[in-house]
Amino acid sequence: MKPTVRLDPSDNVVTATRALEAGAAVEAVATTSLIPSGHKIATEAIPQGGPIRKYAQLIGYAATDIAAGDHVHTHNTEFRNTEQAYEFGTNLRNVEMVPETRRDTFMGYRRENGSVGTRNYIAVVTSVNCSATAARRIADAFGPEELADYPNVDGVVAFVHGTGCGMAGDGDGFEALQRVMWGYARHPNHAGVLMVGLGCEMNQIDWLLEAYGLKQSPTFQTMNIQGVAGLRKTIELGIEKVRSMLPIANEAKREPCPASELMVALQCGGSDAWSGITANPALGYACDLLVAQGGTGVLAETPEIYGAEHLLTARAIDRKVGDRLVGLIRWWEDYTARNKGSMDNNPSPGNKKGGLTTILEKSLGAAAKGGTTPLTGVYKYAEPVRAKGFTFMDSPGYDPASVTGQIAGGCNLVCFTTGRGSAFGSKPAPTIKVATNSEMYGGMIEDMDVNAGTMLSEGVSLEEKGREIYELFLRVASGEQSKSEAQGLGDYEFVPWQIGAVM
Amino acid sequence: MKPTVRLDPSDNVVTATRALEAGAAVEAVATTSLIPSGHKIATEAIPQGGPIRKYAQLIGYAATDIAAGDHVHTHNTEFRNTEQAYEFGTNLRNVEMVPETRRDTFMGYRRENGSVGTRNYIAVVTSVNCSATAARRIADAFGPEELADYPNVDGVVAFVHGTGCGMAGDGDGFEALQRVMWGYARHPNHAGVLMVGLGCEMNQIDWLLEAYGLKQSPTFQTMNIQGVAGLRKTIELGIEKVRSMLPIANEAKREPCPASELMVALQCGGSDAWSGITANPALGYACDLLVAQGGTGVLAETPEIYGAEHLLTARAIDRKVGDRLVGLIRWWEDYTARNKGSMDNNPSPGNKKGGLTTILEKSLGAAAKGGTTPLTGVYKYAEPVRAKGFTFMDSPGYDPASVTGQIAGGCNLVCFTTGRGSAFGSKPAPTIKVATNSEMYGGMIEDMDVNAGTMLSEGVSLEEKGREIYELFLRVASGEQSKSEAQGLGDYEFVPWQIGAVM
Ligand SMILES: [Ca+2]
Ligand SMILES: [Ca+2]
Ligand SMILES: [Ca+2]
Ligand SMILES: [Ca+2]
Ligand SMILES: [Ca+2]
Repeated sequence: MKPTVRLDPSDNVVTATRALEAGAAVEAVATTSLIPSGHKIATEAIPQGGPIRKYAQLIGYAATDIAAGDHVHTHNTEFRNTEQAYEFGTNLRNVEMVPETRRDTFMGYRRENGSVGTRNYIAVVTSVNCSATAARRIADAFGPEELADYPNVDGVVAFVHGTGCGMAGDGDGFEALQRVMWGYARHPNHAGVLMVGLGCEMNQIDWLLEAYGLKQSPTFQTMNIQGVAGLRKTIELGIEKVRSMLPIANEAKREPCPASELMVALQCGGSDAWSGITANPALGYACDLLVAQGGTGVLAETPEIYGAEHLLTARAIDRKVGDRLVGLIRWWEDYTARNKGSMDNNPSPGNKKGGLTTILEKSLGAAAKGGTTPLTGVYKYAEPVRAKGFTFMDSPGYDPASVTGQIAGGCNLVCFTTGRGSAFGSKPAPTIKVATNSEMYGGMIEDMDVNAGTMLSEGVSLEEKGREIYELFLRVASGEQSKSEAQGLGDYEFVPWQIGAVM
Repeated sequence: MKPTVRLDPSDNVVTATRALEAGAAVEAVATTSLIPSGHKIATEAIPQGGPIRKYAQLIGYAATDIAAGDHVHTHNTEFRNTEQAYEFGTNLRNVEMVPETRRDTFMGYRRENGSVGTRNYIAVVTSVNCSATAARRIADAFGPEELADYPNVDGVVAFVHGTGCGMAGDGDGFEALQRVMWGYARHPNHAGVLMVGLGCEMNQIDWLLEAYGLKQSPTFQTMNIQGVAGLRKTIELGIEKVRSMLPIANEAKREPCPASELMVALQCGGSDAWSGITANPALGYACDLLVAQGGTGVLAETPEIYGAEHLLTARAIDRKVGDRLVGLIRWWEDYTARNKGSMDNNPSPGNKKGGLTTILEKSLGAAAKGGTTPLTGVYKYAEPVRAKGFTFMDSPGYDPASVTGQIAGGCNLVCFTTGRGSAFGSKPAPTIKVATNSEMYGGMIEDMDVNAGTMLSEGVSLEEKGREIYELFLRVASGEQSKSEAQGLGDYEFVPWQIGAVM
């Protein structure tokens, strides 16, 4: 492993891949002091006030004269939080689209409405925690034996959560929850959906049907415990309803579908100093490949792009898309302030210890998952993603809440980078996990699909690792099980973002 | 069934138990118009400005001259929201305590620290959603076969939730979650506890151990997925750890314990017009009987006593207890305002349609669950309840979040009244469900333990119904299964109150 890593030829800092003594050779210079692993070294002199560049981006200014070989960190870096004058569409990279006739394909489930699934589940969706046990029991009734005659059905999944009542009946929180339910109801990975409620909850199933014009059908049915009168009868009736959906669901067959039908949730959790250097850029490269195929990447986790949103507005295809992103940033400032928190405690002490100096540097690392293509759409949490290309969805950084929104928005695949390690998995869209470093990959090899740590430990190129991830998208979309999927994860990770007061 | 019900001899209104035509005989008067079921009728003339009394309490003032037989509702009732000058301890009813030698007993599990359990579970408690699947798999490994040699162990339960990260590391939300975990860790219904985390979450298990001085022991162990390195190994190690607790847990034996060791969570959900007339007062009477035995009742659901808190401060044993309650009310006003909600939209349109006229009338109905004895303590959400007698715990009204706090506070039994019907159940403390009306009871007989509707439909007295509930407390505490328990409910209803922003 090389002692340092350079992220762009134009950068004037490189990152130490291990702790370096004073006097260590770093490119053409020598370190002037001890450099902790993950921290930055100046590769040329930077005069006071001069720009510090990493990822080919400005991450701060020299607070003092910095000599070549100096440790560059909070002690000699200044972050100028200029009131941002956002630019819109000033950094639009031309995307060379792969001609339609030469596009990659995967084996997917084409649904009647034209959407394409990567899996074929029947979902039992709950409106409120009060129907959680009922939904679990209904889904639990469909083990391998019950499903033996339906080889094309991947399973019956209960989507159970802790909210749905004791909440305001309008506003951000209510609307977000209804969008999540709607999103799971129409998800292309679902061949059938049964909604189960209690009956008196705030999050009324009937309101949802009305708001979104949903109609009951053989593969979309709803029921309430109070209407059916009792838990046992609800479970029995629910099992009957799901059983009646199985033959229909089993008729679905995989067929070749263009990669443009893939919508991949870009996610990170348990990040470390290498996330922004290995796994996130590699996922970004995979996203670029997908976008060139006409597919869609969905970046999310608004708190993690905070402070770098001007880089995304510059990539916005038009002013309207950019303004939506700025609107989300303002909403988050209000949301955290109202809740006596702050968006500004970034980078955290742990981040700083790991070598992240400014909010820009941190957010650049997270945003690297989104590659380099233009930003074609910005969506509310769990809103249907309609644009192709690179898009953004509002969400918290918290993994299960963020991914729940991305899946509700239509993502049929999830790619999740992690440095500390994670046992995350999701249904109905499977999660591919990418390790940022070889050490964690070695320890959690049963949980990790890809080791992006080889970009450091073995000098594997960004292009090579990005392509490896992209090709795994196609294989997993076609039915190959990801590691988390093989372990059966995804039954307990459905967490709609709960926004308002619980009353 | 009589056409009306009178709640106190001093009341000047009665409540219609069914829709009454104009001219219907009601006590000594005749109705002057159509009266919907659940609505009130004046049994004497009330001059403009005169007090309207129900539950022996002032619920409002006559806005116009009201004639005997008139419908009394929002059209002729005025609510004067005088800036409340709280009185403290001015309404302390003398409790005739049952002498210790003559107290009732139940068969409970006496723990080493002196606390008494009503069940004997092993708990797998999660710090964050990221360890949810791991915890479920560990608990799922202990089916009837695995437990056959341990007849005194009621089961292995996973307590899994949607929060634990993407949150501030201090403040109300964080502290509430840590109290919940601490409460489940020390609950007397748990013979052993295994805590499972991911490792990098905000809600660190280690911080909890430090904050509460918890020490690892053969029956209290912790582990992190990142530390163990991977899901499969975590599950295997977790199963081993639980298995090692089984022989110890199995040594616990039921023995006679005084009723003073019972701590009952008083809860309502899916309320209707009869809640405040049948089931809630009956549960309040049972609570009075329990308090006379030296036991504890824990009322909660702060939003549902809002506007009637002055009646509870008047019952507070001292100024300090009363001030804590007033502090909670102020906190809730701030919490809902910050979240763009309001405490003041009570009674709701649905409540009014059902006959509830003022916030006082509504809150009196909910508070009736707490009986009539002095208020001996007021607690934060999930805080250990140390006082004996009638106490109050801060919580939302939302059933699973409220009960989770009550159980964390030490409740070893839950009593839940419902009008619309509910399939709620809880672990490790079992839930007894009381129906407010005979119609719903008849429809959900497999879910309901007690029919308080017979107080209307068959004229069963408050005392008789209250004693029936109290005696059921003793039997269920001794091991008799409640209806929800027999159905196995309680595995999916653990919902820590999530207070702050999700980030
Ligand atoms: Ca993240
Ligand atoms: Ca995340
Ligand atoms: Ca079990
Ligand atoms: Ca209630
Ligand atoms: Ca409740």
